[in-house]
Amino acid sequence: MAFRTIEWRDDAVVMLDQTRLPAEEIYNRYTDFTSVAEAIRGMVVRGAPAIGVAAAMGIALGAREIVADTAESFFRQLENVCQVIGRTRPTAVNLFWAIDRMKRVAEAARGGSLEDIRTALRREAILIEQEDLAICKAIGQNGAELIPHGATVLTHCNAGGLATAGYGTALGVIRAAQEAGKNIRVFADETRPWLQGARLTAWELMKDGIPVTLIADNMAGFFMAKGEITCCVVGADRIAANGDTANKIGTYTVAVLAREHGIPFYVAAPVSTLDLSCSDGSRIPIEERPSTEVTHIRGLPIAPEGIGVRNPSFDVTPARYITAIITEKGVVRGDFSSQLAALGGA
Amino acid sequence: MAFRTIEWRDDAVVMLDQTRLPAEEIYNRYTDFTSVAEAIRGMVVRGAPAIGVAAAMGIALGAREIVADTAESFFRQLENVCQVIGRTRPTAVNLFWAIDRMKRVAEAARGGSLEDIRTALRREAILIEQEDLAICKAIGQNGAELIPHGATVLTHCNAGGLATAGYGTALGVIRAAQEAGKNIRVFADETRPWLQGARLTAWELMKDGIPVTLIADNMAGFFMAKGEITCCVVGADRIAANGDTANKIGTYTVAVLAREHGIPFYVAAPVSTLDLSCSDGSRIPIEERPSTEVTHIRGLPIAPEGIGVRNPSFDVTPARYITAIITEKGVVRGDFSSQLAALGGA
Repeated sequence: MAFRTIEWRDDAVVMLDQTRLPAEEIYNRYTDFTSVAEAIRGMVVRGAPAIGVAAAMGIALGAREIVADTAESFFRQLENVCQVIGRTRPTAVNLFWAIDRMKRVAEAARGGSLEDIRTALRREAILIEQEDLAICKAIGQNGAELIPHGATVLTHCNAGGLATAGYGTALGVIRAAQEAGKNIRVFADETRPWLQGARLTAWELMKDGIPVTLIADNMAGFFMAKGEITCCVVGADRIAANGDTANKIGTYTVAVLAREHGIPFYVAAPVSTLDLSCSDGSRIPIEERPSTEVTHIRGLPIAPEGIGVRNPSFDVTPARYITAIITEKGVVRGDFSSQLAALGGA
Repeated sequence: MAFRTIEWRDDAVVMLDQTRLPAEEIYNRYTDFTSVAEAIRGMVVRGAPAIGVAAAMGIALGAREIVADTAESFFRQLENVCQVIGRTRPTAVNLFWAIDRMKRVAEAARGGSLEDIRTALRREAILIEQEDLAICKAIGQNGAELIPHGATVLTHCNAGGLATAGYGTALGVIRAAQEAGKNIRVFADETRPWLQGARLTAWELMKDGIPVTLIADNMAGFFMAKGEITCCVVGADRIAANGDTANKIGTYTVAVLAREHGIPFYVAAPVSTLDLSCSDGSRIPIEERPSTEVTHIRGLPIAPEGIGVRNPSFDVTPARYITAIITEKGVVRGDFSSQLAALGGA
């Protein structure tokens, strides 16, 4: 990759500021957990797997900030760190998955010195980042087999290197297919209101030299009807036990259109995105973000002042619209419930 | 209405500049036909019926500009005026309908002086504008009966007073339902890339005090799935003989989503939008507009420089997705072909 989304460097968290792409490629350095929490909320870093990595690194920073005489005091303060990180974005389950994993690591190190616990947390955060990259490569390998030679793949939002530790989930599938010599072309939905497709997916695919065509979200149906789309691949923010998938707002519309045109619709995500405690999609909390994301673009107003706005940031695609879910452990098709349960329990 | 979209005043055409709404309410004055053609192409005026009125008034201006010694010379130059006006926007059939009507009026006046012909053309253009307003009111009356009390109506693009001589087609139906005391609420798709929903529909409904909520285009499916949308009403740029309807890009997606959720999907348009010479939607020419409409918003870049873009400005909704077509002559349901043929022949 020609960029690093997030990394631990010199006892700090360094993140590519995604609010400023594609105009500026700026790396921010964070040395305290509250700034990392703010960066997650403000979408300096976004994308479910990358949010998980950022949460883990934020907790590692927080553990270093804690001043405590006793383990009890340390763990009480660590709990507060985890709660602050956990209140940033409600939909992506990877955030809570990472927090739980870091808590378990801290508990396992409880017998040692506070410095031992801090070290264990730092190592775990870096491990989560490294694992995420490996997971994306495995997702790519598993998914590439589903993509025909010469395919034009429609994707929505950014489930790319910028949404993960690198390589990407949906874009990982596209990258792996391209690396296998399949001669792929991509249609990227611009993905209003935050324009992840126009700003991020277009940027990272251009950097990799993968042919990409940018369209407005409402054009996907036009190109499907014309027969120009071979298949759709998107990421996920949370997958319920029955396969219902929360992902960036507009994903559901792409899925409905894909089924209407007989086009395969694939979800690519790590097993950490699976939430077996959610029986179905109706139980996934959907974040509503500020109305200014809709009424303003880069600070410029595009709607009348005082207009009423709704801005759900995610929607839920029922499992029946999903052709297959591509994970690092394999491709799940058909009856999602039993297979996802098997994956989640591994 | 609290604004005038287009009018003939003091031997000039005055148009509300829709490229500058909602930030500025500026009326431009045009005294020559090439400027009117440029205004149509540049979307100072847009919306199929309003384009028809602008074309007619542009021809009336052009007729006044012609210097000719003979009727032959006058008519040769008038043909050139009509061709310049006709090359502005390819999809809205009202443009060609208005040109044909103006040509017929000129021919009918051929026996008189050139001044008689110019007068006949000016009167016809003003008549087309006045008729359009009356037609919109009739569409509103016919359509209002389809809208339940307390309905939340989703609309796409702007088929309002700003797209017509006033009152609107789709928004005419909403206005008439509101005037009938039906307590209507509107969800307005922002309608990328040109943001007619955010900039125009939101603006004119707020002016009229009709409750309106702005959403990004890719959110319509979310709100339909939540049961928050009662029905959809949109305008049309061209209706083929079989009922297939070209309208603003994204309309087809709304129609597919509506059917998926069992929500009625209505098209509201004057009979002048009907093109019986087009047997079906595949024969309707679809305008592709400049890529900068997608890559830039109000002059600000939102995508990487050099990105490939597609920008079809319209799509075709097959007749099978349309619950009914609402015209000034009545509501057409079921077998569109025979009923549309009867309307078009009237």
